Amino acid sequence: MRRQRFAVVVSRSVLLVGATLVGVLAATGLEAQALKDVQTPDTPLVLKAQGSFFVGGESVEQTQGELGNLGPGGHISVNQMYVRFMVPQGGAGNVSVVLVHGATLTGKSWETTPDGRMGWDEYFVRKGHPVYVPDQVGRGRSGFNQAVFNNVRAGKAAAADQPALFRFSDEVAWPNFRFGLKPGAPFLDSQFPASAVDELAKQGVPDVSRLLPTPNPTLKALADLATQLKGAVMMGHSQSGAFPLEAALLNPAATRALVLVEPGRCPDTYTDEQIKVLATVPILAVFGDHRDTPTGISIRPSWQLSFDGCQALLGRIKAAGGDARMLNPADQGIRGNSHMIMQDKNNRQIADLILQWIDAHVGKRSGGNR
Amino acid sequence: MRRQRFAVVVSRSVLLVGATLVGVLAATGLEAQALKDVQTPDTPLVLKAQGSFFVGGESVEQTQGELGNLGPGGHISVNQMYVRFMVPQGGAGNVSVVLVHGATLTGKSWETTPDGRMGWDEYFVRKGHPVYVPDQVGRGRSGFNQAVFNNVRAGKAAAADQPALFRFSDEVAWPNFRFGLKPGAPFLDSQFPASAVDELAKQGVPDVSRLLPTPNPTLKALADLATQLKGAVMMGHSQSGAFPLEAALLNPAATRALVLVEPGRCPDTYTDEQIKVLATVPILAVFGDHRDTPTGISIRPSWQLSFDGCQALLGRIKAAGGDARMLNPADQGIRGNSHMIMQDKNNRQIADLILQWIDAHVGKRSGGNR
Repeated sequence: MRRQRFAVVVSRSVLLVGATLVGVLAATGLEAQALKDVQTPDTPLVLKAQGSFFVGGESVEQTQGELGNLGPGGHISVNQMYVRFMVPQGGAGNVSVVLVHGATLTGKSWETTPDGRMGWDEYFVRKGHPVYVPDQVGRGRSGFNQAVFNNVRAGKAAAADQPALFRFSDEVAWPNFRFGLKPGAPFLDSQFPASAVDELAKQGVPDVSRLLPTPNPTLKALADLATQLKGAVMMGHSQSGAFPLEAALLNPAATRALVLVEPGRCPDTYTDEQIKVLATVPILAVFGDHRDTPTGISIRPSWQLSFDGCQALLGRIKAAGGDARMLNPADQGIRGNSHMIMQDKNNRQIADLILQWIDAHVGKRSGGNR
Repeated sequence: MRRQRFAVVVSRSVLLVGATLVGVLAATGLEAQALKDVQTPDTPLVLKAQGSFFVGGESVEQTQGELGNLGPGGHISVNQMYVRFMVPQGGAGNVSVVLVHGATLTGKSWETTPDGRMGWDEYFVRKGHPVYVPDQVGRGRSGFNQAVFNNVRAGKAAAADQPALFRFSDEVAWPNFRFGLKPGAPFLDSQFPASAVDELAKQGVPDVSRLLPTPNPTLKALADLATQLKGAVMMGHSQSGAFPLEAALLNPAATRALVLVEPGRCPDTYTDEQIKVLATVPILAVFGDHRDTPTGISIRPSWQLSFDGCQALLGRIKAAGGDARMLNPADQGIRGNSHMIMQDKNNRQIADLILQWIDAHVGKRSGGNR
């Protein structure tokens, strides 16, 4: 196994012993068979349509070597964005919601939760909204441009030319995603389903963001998707938390509302002109609890910094006449939410707060072309 | 843009001119906006359940550098298999069908076709079967182990230690997937929706098969999935065309039937004991038309060789008392099917032939645990 040259392989059973020693896990254990834990709803899901498609993409010509030497050189498509969708029966006139995932993750973030409960993708559909779930360009089913890696392998490019591929360790997820201060020690009021944290670990994929051209093609793809939908609520999370702002700047008319869920960073560099554009679209930022926890990540010592930055941006937008609001569930006595708030045990409660805001600030029956 | 150091970027509009010159494309053009082409079925899809989960996976410990230097070292999960599923209302007692994709592709293969028609995933659900669509280990939402790439980047491993990442060029897809002898020149009877070939191109992702341990973890994951489903029809395509055979050898009791769609290769190395095991499970192999076309790929000069190899294997299994059959639609006057037969214009006709075989050889109501 090539992998063993670079990494220590630890079997699940060995890990389980270690985990038990530090009190990490509840009864489901690390050998949890996720399928058996997947819950079946009480009522059927009735869809007018479901399926998938791509947005964007460009054709590039590559050599046989860049294509990995399986066949001759030629063109391939890169920088396209995969999108899966569900349209509820009777909901075709309702406003569409686009759910964009964060760093080292894919659209899976919004599907069945690690402990087998319904994801926000289906929940928003059951509440009447057509839902579109992309994989960011370069991630998951959107693929990535492999040429530089094959060139490095062949000695035709310097090793440093290939970008770093990011993953978060399971250990750093605990403080960084605010499940607890340390691995295996959830906050007493934690809403994250800690017994299923291994299923979250499986959602991780290499993050090739540094391979992407500037600006990130995901931004235009999201704006184009909103345009094709004739208007959509754009929701981002973490790494993509500010993507809805960028999509709105590209096509404000197609973005009916922006929901920024736990953005890694709200930009502080927008011009007054850009703020005026953002003031034309209702904006909601959403943050969980325990934001003062040290993250263990040097580039962001605490999530409170992100919260404060977003408060400042919302303030600028409000000062320009915009409809911009911070949703901090802890202010309403809802405590213990994590960074992975869409997977938390009270994820429907949080979704309901967002849905109420959409109804009040956008109007449910205000869009959709399907 | 880093990419431009390694590849010639050709805009879609420039390509369109070239494409028109050689008569490649019909009116939809290369700027086809796939969403507008996605068709809505006449009747709603009623699901008892839908969602996603993972099968398998192991925890490995990696250094900060192997994780890309975003955070400290620790454990991550690798070699898990992502699975998306849909269970039809009223179909919970019917036998489940698992659809596995081929090389350089993901589970997207089975979803909405490149020209916007219903994929086999939904079609089999509408015919009453719970359907499970994995991304092979190392591909799409299953992720891959990025450590070696980061080690090469850091000079801690030799460039040759990182595996080649495969893509097929759009040009080689024409002869290799048997749309036509040359790019832009479909067979007169071709069933592939040639005007949407650019949407197929977007389905391509880097194939990291050479990164995977031996045996490929997808095989055990498929056998485990069949076990968790308490029996399933296992369908593979192309690269994974023979995976159902391997899953059956790992757990024959859980594989209700094997459907080998255009296998790249049917193994000729099985022992008599293995053949006896395979003779306990109904097996159907399915091939499209135009198999004598030169593929342009040196490792497989023509698909007729694959067909002949599968005929030989089916013969061995039949000689051992097995229920093994070749489905060659051309024998029934159904001509022009391609390697991407599940996306062909007559994909429902082919699906119906497979569904009839499942009903006759397995019994529709013979399994499923959901």
